[in-house]
Amino acid sequence: MSVTAPHGFTAAGGTAGLKPSGRPDLAVVHNVGPRASAAAVYTSNRFPAAPVQVSREHTADGELRAVVLNSGGANACTGEAGLSAARTMAATVAEAIGLLEQQVAVCSTGLIGVELPLELVVPGIVEVTAALHPEGGQAAAEAIMTTDTMPKQSVVGGNGWVVGGMAKGAGMLAPGLATMLVVITTDAELEPAELDSHLRAATRVTFDRADSDGCMSTNDTVIAMANGASGIRPDPQTFGDALTAVCADLARQLIADAEGASHEIAITVAGAATEDQAVAGARTIARSNLFKCAVFGGDPNWGRVLSAIGTTDIAFEPSRVDVTFNDITVCRGGGIGEDRNLVDLSGRQVELLVELNAGDARATVLTNDLTYDYVKENAEYST
Amino acid sequence: MSVTAPHGFTAAGGTAGLKPSGRPDLAVVHNVGPRASAAAVYTSNRFPAAPVQVSREHTADGELRAVVLNSGGANACTGEAGLSAARTMAATVAEAIGLLEQQVAVCSTGLIGVELPLELVVPGIVEVTAALHPEGGQAAAEAIMTTDTMPKQSVVGGNGWVVGGMAKGAGMLAPGLATMLVVITTDAELEPAELDSHLRAATRVTFDRADSDGCMSTNDTVIAMANGASGIRPDPQTFGDALTAVCADLARQLIADAEGASHEIAITVAGAATEDQAVAGARTIARSNLFKCAVFGGDPNWGRVLSAIGTTDIAFEPSRVDVTFNDITVCRGGGIGEDRNLVDLSGRQVELLVELNAGDARATVLTNDLTYDYVKENAEYST
Repeated sequence: MSVTAPHGFTAAGGTAGLKPSGRPDLAVVHNVGPRASAAAVYTSNRFPAAPVQVSREHTADGELRAVVLNSGGANACTGEAGLSAARTMAATVAEAIGLLEQQVAVCSTGLIGVELPLELVVPGIVEVTAALHPEGGQAAAEAIMTTDTMPKQSVVGGNGWVVGGMAKGAGMLAPGLATMLVVITTDAELEPAELDSHLRAATRVTFDRADSDGCMSTNDTVIAMANGASGIRPDPQTFGDALTAVCADLARQLIADAEGASHEIAITVAGAATEDQAVAGARTIARSNLFKCAVFGGDPNWGRVLSAIGTTDIAFEPSRVDVTFNDITVCRGGGIGEDRNLVDLSGRQVELLVELNAGDARATVLTNDLTYDYVKENAEYST
Repeated sequence: MSVTAPHGFTAAGGTAGLKPSGRPDLAVVHNVGPRASAAAVYTSNRFPAAPVQVSREHTADGELRAVVLNSGGANACTGEAGLSAARTMAATVAEAIGLLEQQVAVCSTGLIGVELPLELVVPGIVEVTAALHPEGGQAAAEAIMTTDTMPKQSVVGGNGWVVGGMAKGAGMLAPGLATMLVVITTDAELEPAELDSHLRAATRVTFDRADSDGCMSTNDTVIAMANGASGIRPDPQTFGDALTAVCADLARQLIADAEGASHEIAITVAGAATEDQAVAGARTIARSNLFKCAVFGGDPNWGRVLSAIGTTDIAFEPSRVDVTFNDITVCRGGGIGEDRNLVDLSGRQVELLVELNAGDARATVLTNDLTYDYVKENAEYST
C-alpha cells in the first residue's frame, strides 16, 4: 500500500482525462497528521517545471500536508500560465481538504511544453480528494504512471513506525535525480531538519546513482512527509537505514522498468581513490551508448568499458585495471583476461565490476542497456 | 585521389586478411619528399592503443616519411605484445621502403582487446608497399574502412600547392577527437611547428566538433605530412583555410556516414557568452539520447533540447532561450513558440538553432540521430 502504509496518511488516484489512453492520471496523498514535517529534493535542471517551482516555495518551511500529482503533462516550459496552473492545483486540493495552498506540493510528469488543461484537472482534483482513503496507496501509485509498465511501491517497517513510498519514472532517468516523481511517507516522529538530512543522505546513494539514459528531467521531485502518528521518535541510524532501503528499492524498480530495457546493469567501480571517483567512473560507463548496445547484444565488450573510463580523470593506472562481467574477468591488468566466450549475458541481470586497484572506495551505479525498444519509445513519445 | 593529390606522395591499399569479410584492410601512405614535416593529434583516452603510443614517439620530432594503417583490429589494450606488434609494423614498412622505423607512424582500427595476427600483417605490408603509387589514394582510403559504407576523401587546392586527406570512422565519433583515423598530405612547404599549429587550429573547429555518439576511441589519430614538393611556402592564412576546409569536409563525411544514422544534425548554439560555452551547450544536446531519438522519430521535441542545456552551467536566462528546428522557432523565450507541426524533419539534414541571447559567440556541433540501426550495428559489432 506504499504511501498509505504508515499511519495517518490517505491517498487516492483517479482519472481527469489528461491521457489519450483514458488511464488514471491524477493522485493525491494527504498527511492527516498530527505533524507535518516535510523535506524534498528537486531537479537541478535550469528549466524547472512550474510544479517544481511552486513546490519549492511550499516546502521551504519544512511543512506539508498534501501532494497532488498528475501524469499526462509535465507543465514544464509553460511560462506564467504554467505557474498559475500549478498554483491552482495546490489551491484546489487545499480547498477540498481544508488546508492552506502552501501546505500542498505539486508534481507533474508527461510531455514538456504543453499547457495543462485546467478545465479537466480541477474537477479531477475535486473527485480524487473526495476518494482519499487509508488504503488508497495502490490507486495513487497507478495514477502517476506514464510509460511505466507497473506501479513502483515500497514499504519498510521500523520499531513501531513504517516508511512507505511510491515512484514513477521509466525514461530520462539520470542523476542529480533520476527523472522521477517520488513520494515517501512515514509515521515516525522527526523534525523537518532531521527528515531533510535523512532524505538527502538516502537519495545521494540511491536515486542519484540510477542513471538509465543520462538525461535529466525538468520535473524530478522526491518528497518525504513525516507525521509522527506512531508517536515514536526513531533511532536516527535505524530510520536512515529504513528510508535508504525504501529509496534503494524504488530506484531498483525504476531501473527494472526503464523504457525498452532488456538488461538491468549494476556497474560497480571498486578500488577507487574516493567514493566520488568511483561514482564518476561508474557513471561514465553507464552513459556509454556503445557499452549499452554491447550489453543488449550479449557482448561482454570490455574494450568499450576501458574506452569509457579512459575519458575520465579519476585516479588509476591503465595497466592495473581489471574488468569482470558476471564473475568472468575478461580484462586483467588493462589487457586480455579470461575468454570472453565464458560470459553469459543472456539473463536480465548484469553485474559489471571494474577494479581500479587505486584505493579502497567503491560505488555502484544502476543503468540499462540501449535497445531497439528504447529508441522506439523515445522516437514515438510525443508524436 | 585524396592523400596522393599533392605532389610527392604515393599510397596503396591491399588485403592482409584481417577481416572475416576478406575486404581490403591495409594501407600505406609514403611521403617521397623532399621534406618530411609532420604533425599529429591523438586521442586523449587514457587507454591509448599501441599504435597511438608508437606513433606519438615517432612524430615527437616533427618528422615522418610514411604512415601504415590497418583496419580489422585496433591493437588496443593488448599490452607489451601489442606494442611490439605496432613497432614491427613500422619496421616492416621502413625496411620495405628504405626508411628508419621512427620515420613511420602506425594507425589501427577495429575491435579492442584482440592481438593483431602479425603473420598476416607483415606479408601484407610487404605486398602493399610494393604497390605504392602516385594514384593510390583511392585504394588506401578504401582499405581503412571498417563499418564505413564509403571512403572519405577530400582535396583543396591552394596557390600552387594542394592539401589532400582521407579518413575512416563511422561510430565512436566523439570529441577530443571523433573516433577516426585521418591522414592529411600537402606539398606546401612548412616547418613542423607551423604544420602543428595549423593542424591543431583546424581540428579544434572540425573533428573536435563532430560528436556522433559521445564515445571516445582508444585509437583516434590525425596525422598531417608536408613535403614541400611544390617548392612554395604558402600564405599562413590561406593554408590554414585550406587545411580547415579539408578537415571540415572529412568531418562532415564522417557524420554523414555515421553508424545507422538517418539524420545529420547540425546543432548551432548562438548568442552564447563565449565560443567555448556555445560548444559546451551544443555538445550536451548532441549527447542527449532522448533528443536524438526524437529526431529519428521526426519529432521537433524542443523540451528535450531545453532539458539538455538545462543541465549545463553555461550563461543564459531560461526565459530568453529560443529553439528553432529547420527555420521554425518552436520555442520562444523558454516557452511555447510556433506550431511544432510546421516542422518538417523528413529530410536527412536537420538544422537546430538554439539562441541563448546571452552574448555574441556561436558554434556548431555535428551529430546524428539515434536509430534502430545504430543499436543493431553496435550490438552485433564484435559478436
